[in-house]
Amino acid sequence: MREMLYLEDLKPGLRFTTHSHPLTEDEIMAFARQYDPQPFHIDPQAARHSFFGSLAASGWHTAAITMRLQVDSGPPLAGGMIGASVELSWPRPTRPGDSLHVESEILEVIPSRSKPDRGFITLKSETKNQKGEVVQLQTSKLLVWRRKPL
Amino acid sequence: MREMLYLEDLKPGLRFTTHSHPLTEDEIMAFARQYDPQPFHIDPQAARHSFFGSLAASGWHTAAITMRLQVDSGPPLAGGMIGASVELSWPRPTRPGDSLHVESEILEVIPSRSKPDRGFITLKSETKNQKGEVVQLQTSKLLVWRRKPL
Repeated sequence: MREMLYLEDLKPGLRFTTHSHPLTEDEIMAFARQYDPQPFHIDPQAARHSFFGSLAASGWHTAAITMRLQVDSGPPLAGGMIGASVELSWPRPTRPGDSLHVESEILEVIPSRSKPDRGFITLKSETKNQKGEVVQLQTSKLLVWRRKPL
Repeated sequence: MREMLYLEDLKPGLRFTTHSHPLTEDEIMAFARQYDPQPFHIDPQAARHSFFGSLAASGWHTAAITMRLQVDSGPPLAGGMIGASVELSWPRPTRPGDSLHVESEILEVIPSRSKPDRGFITLKSETKNQKGEVVQLQTSKLLVWRRKPL
């Protein structure tokens, strides 16, 4: 069991690094067939003649894997990771054979003005491949509970 | 076959509405077990005692379903829907039994300054449930090809 973190435990600059998730071509195509069935995500041949040049994971798959990594081995927030809003970008494609991990840092800790039992953090998360290249940059506003309500 | 749209065909104010996707508890839990295995997404009993009050879909599942709806019946962009960056928020949870559709509107059309064959659009997309309530608000910057390069 990891020790759970409450709002009082958090401050800007705290950093977290997850485990890695190795990604296969099969997993990329299975996700995409269900949720983003575009040729460059489900057909290696067609992908060669697309913008991506070869098979690329759906950005939503990269986002979903990022969430899984954060839930399993990211910031252990008491009550879970509950996102209110997110900004996302994908500076480069995720490819078959990539192994992804997430490095995140707390940018802000914001107590709620109206609710004494909670606050928000702004968390910047970089999802990187095995070469250290950023495949997804994410800034999230997350709900965090206080250990002791004000 | 739908007629494919190029940058020249697009202007601010153009609107699109997708088909609907009915969402089951099984689908919510299957997605979450793989990508967001938090109690309030995978365990109806545990969800009752959580922030959400009852089982709620992962926001990433709502995002993935939104993408599927856009690919199948949203703006038919020539060359596909290729996102550069996205802002997302989830004003209310997606629940078992919800039927989701996406209403989107082009906010901006931005020709590339450096590349004569392409441009970008800003697309605002609201994912709504069967009551018309917004469960996801998304603003995306998408790559769009020109029919005839400048």
